[in-house]
Amino acid sequence: MRIIVPFDAQDPNTRLASQLDAEKRYEFARTMLRDVLDTIISTGHEPTVLATGPVETEEADVIIDERSLNPAVNAFLGQTAERVGIIMSDLPLMTETALHRLLASTSEVALAPGRGGGTNALLVDHGEFRVDYHGVSYLDHLTIANEVDASVEVIDSFQLAVDIDRPADFGEVLIHGDCRTHDWLSDEGFELCRSDGRVEVRRCRYTNS
Amino acid sequence: MRIIVPFDAQDPNTRLASQLDAEKRYEFARTMLRDVLDTIISTGHEPTVLATGPVETEEADVIIDERSLNPAVNAFLGQTAERVGIIMSDLPLMTETALHRLLASTSEVALAPGRGGGTNALLVDHGEFRVDYHGVSYLDHLTIANEVDASVEVIDSFQLAVDIDRPADFGEVLIHGDCRTHDWLSDEGFELCRSDGRVEVRRCRYTNS
Repeated sequence: MRIIVPFDAQDPNTRLASQLDAEKRYEFARTMLRDVLDTIISTGHEPTVLATGPVETEEADVIIDERSLNPAVNAFLGQTAERVGIIMSDLPLMTETALHRLLASTSEVALAPGRGGGTNALLVDHGEFRVDYHGVSYLDHLTIANEVDASVEVIDSFQLAVDIDRPADFGEVLIHGDCRTHDWLSDEGFELCRSDGRVEVRRCRYTNS
Repeated sequence: MRIIVPFDAQDPNTRLASQLDAEKRYEFARTMLRDVLDTIISTGHEPTVLATGPVETEEADVIIDERSLNPAVNAFLGQTAERVGIIMSDLPLMTETALHRLLASTSEVALAPGRGGGTNALLVDHGEFRVDYHGVSYLDHLTIANEVDASVEVIDSFQLAVDIDRPADFGEVLIHGDCRTHDWLSDEGFELCRSDGRVEVRRCRYTNS
């Protein structure tokens, strides 16, 4: 099985711009990527980073494809007859157990929905299936799987659903994360602020920025 | 096993006030409750609604306890030696499979985190464990379980994590829900609005309000 992790090497995590400048955003994105690669490696697989530009990483091979997400992933899918896992790089909460539930699927397409209709993790074992991450990709991927007569399994996982791409998501990492990303946010001064309602995140000190 | 579903019969879902008036909010809350009760019954269990006031329901017995959530639930826990499941009433995405994963736990405390640090579903098989839904209850419940030396399992489920208590949550129901709550929102004119980014929800027509 091949497992690819798409990565925006140019300007990752733009939705975090209110909290982190471009340099910090890249550092944060690399930290999350490292967590994701570590978890993939822990399950016994060798991940490949599918990046839009050079990425220094000791954990994985890197394929550079400057195109956007859909053509880059679909080009990869078109070049291999193997099963392919496609794991987003902003899932630092993903544990081995959660990833294993996806990779152990016997369906031709297995997918883990993200919040808001995204697709955070995919397993593709069907020659004609192609991705479309634009819009409500979860529903689109179900439609595409149906169109190519692929059997489908939906993986019900909170850990796979929580992609970290907005400042409000930092709370989930601080609550659940036993990972580098958790420590990075802590070192940057982000901490949970408990209120009567839902948890909030505040930045209490600026240690490194 | 006893399974209780706490329900605010006075003024439920106040965070939806921008979208639904008090009468509609109650109707919406009752619709979600019915979905949750149906799913519990489908797993072969008999739910009990723990309500702050009278609730008409054919699906379950009702215990009225006017106190707030923590004392009401803890009074129930103190009166039984059985295993107790505590399922929030705003989880219309919960399927039999997801609920079964919780109820099949062999730990003394099993809990499914909600987004933002909440606890959406609990299984308690320990005489000393008590709930505290105030604040970041997921972390608090882990602490309480540790204090009473209860074994713990965390249930990793998107369906159990998504409680519907803000307008933005309607999108999750419209995307994933095969339930009465989905149909209720559709009948009220709420629909998915696909954009380039994440999905949005808009109200296209006012059929019944």
